[in-house]
Amino acid sequence: MSLQFPPAIEALVDQFNRLPGVGRKSAQRMAFYILSLPPAESEAFRAALAGACDTVRLCSCCQNLADSELCPVCRDPSRDPAVICVVSDPKDVAAIERSREFRGHYHVLHGALSPLGRVGPDELKIKELVTRVAEGTVTEVILATDPDTEGETTALYVARLLGPFGIAVTRLAYGISVGGHLEHADELTLAKAIEGRRPV
Amino acid sequence: MSLQFPPAIEALVDQFNRLPGVGRKSAQRMAFYILSLPPAESEAFRAALAGACDTVRLCSCCQNLADSELCPVCRDPSRDPAVICVVSDPKDVAAIERSREFRGHYHVLHGALSPLGRVGPDELKIKELVTRVAEGTVTEVILATDPDTEGETTALYVARLLGPFGIAVTRLAYGISVGGHLEHADELTLAKAIEGRRPV
Repeated sequence: MSLQFPPAIEALVDQFNRLPGVGRKSAQRMAFYILSLPPAESEAFRAALAGACDTVRLCSCCQNLADSELCPVCRDPSRDPAVICVVSDPKDVAAIERSREFRGHYHVLHGALSPLGRVGPDELKIKELVTRVAEGTVTEVILATDPDTEGETTALYVARLLGPFGIAVTRLAYGISVGGHLEHADELTLAKAIEGRRPV
Repeated sequence: MSLQFPPAIEALVDQFNRLPGVGRKSAQRMAFYILSLPPAESEAFRAALAGACDTVRLCSCCQNLADSELCPVCRDPSRDPAVICVVSDPKDVAAIERSREFRGHYHVLHGALSPLGRVGPDELKIKELVTRVAEGTVTEVILATDPDTEGETTALYVARLLGPFGIAVTRLAYGISVGGHLEHADELTLAKAIEGRRPV
């Protein structure tokens, strides 16, 4: 096959192709789209990318993505620093914020323990969590890692590490989805929902 | 909802969200992915984007994307400039090149006529095609616009414009897909396949 596109385009397609969930064809469509934009708009795309890459770092307290020393949650005086919700990923912070139920602080581990994926405790921000708890003002840690094998393993590991501090260490409740159909719930979830049943 | 992410991240998510086929959630995933890369790799992404935006322009002959005055096809002396394959989009050039069947030149219109989408002949690279044909060395123009309403309209319009030049103006054959199943072909395609049947 002869080369139909200049190397600069192929290079851009390659880069889009690396993004999660983007196949070769979508990457090509994205590259062509960017190249078809008026200069001012492709410039805006480049500026946003540069801005994010240059200013974003990890919050020195909770390890969430931030554009200054502390993230917006850690800076917010109306939030309770005594309760820490531990999540695997910045995306999970966004999901929990959408529920509007939680008013404490977060701690982002940036991954989950995975022996197969060669992710050990040192690859995660676990030390930083222990340091926060060791300061003595935290009263509860809610483990909100994913309900899959890696998330469970991580939650158990962290719970065991925090045991000596004598604070409350909790895990999100399992159960059926609100608005879902019982027949669509898997057996494990149903079993957990029955086990965790509560008086009405 | 309180703002969970710094504005720089929101801005990057907005930009990814503008790409074709990318919803809000995918855009967020892409932004986080980029930000999670080691600096050298996010730098490579930015360099590819800058490189493509800064060097890519339209081939002065066929209007395909190129990184110099002429695109690789127009520069290639082994290709026949007397036959021009007219397509709507640079992606279509890639598709036809993959078939390895065509050894002529291309002409990219950058769109298709669409009265509803307010795309008229002046929005497309049709003048440029007529200029090429008027030079007198072209013997055949193959119309390879999409087999949908807009592509057909465009093919008819271009065919009529080229009529006075007395050259061969052809259209891609319609028919069943190679390797497909007859039962999956739609009626219109089957009708066209029967109409265009050829001796074995």
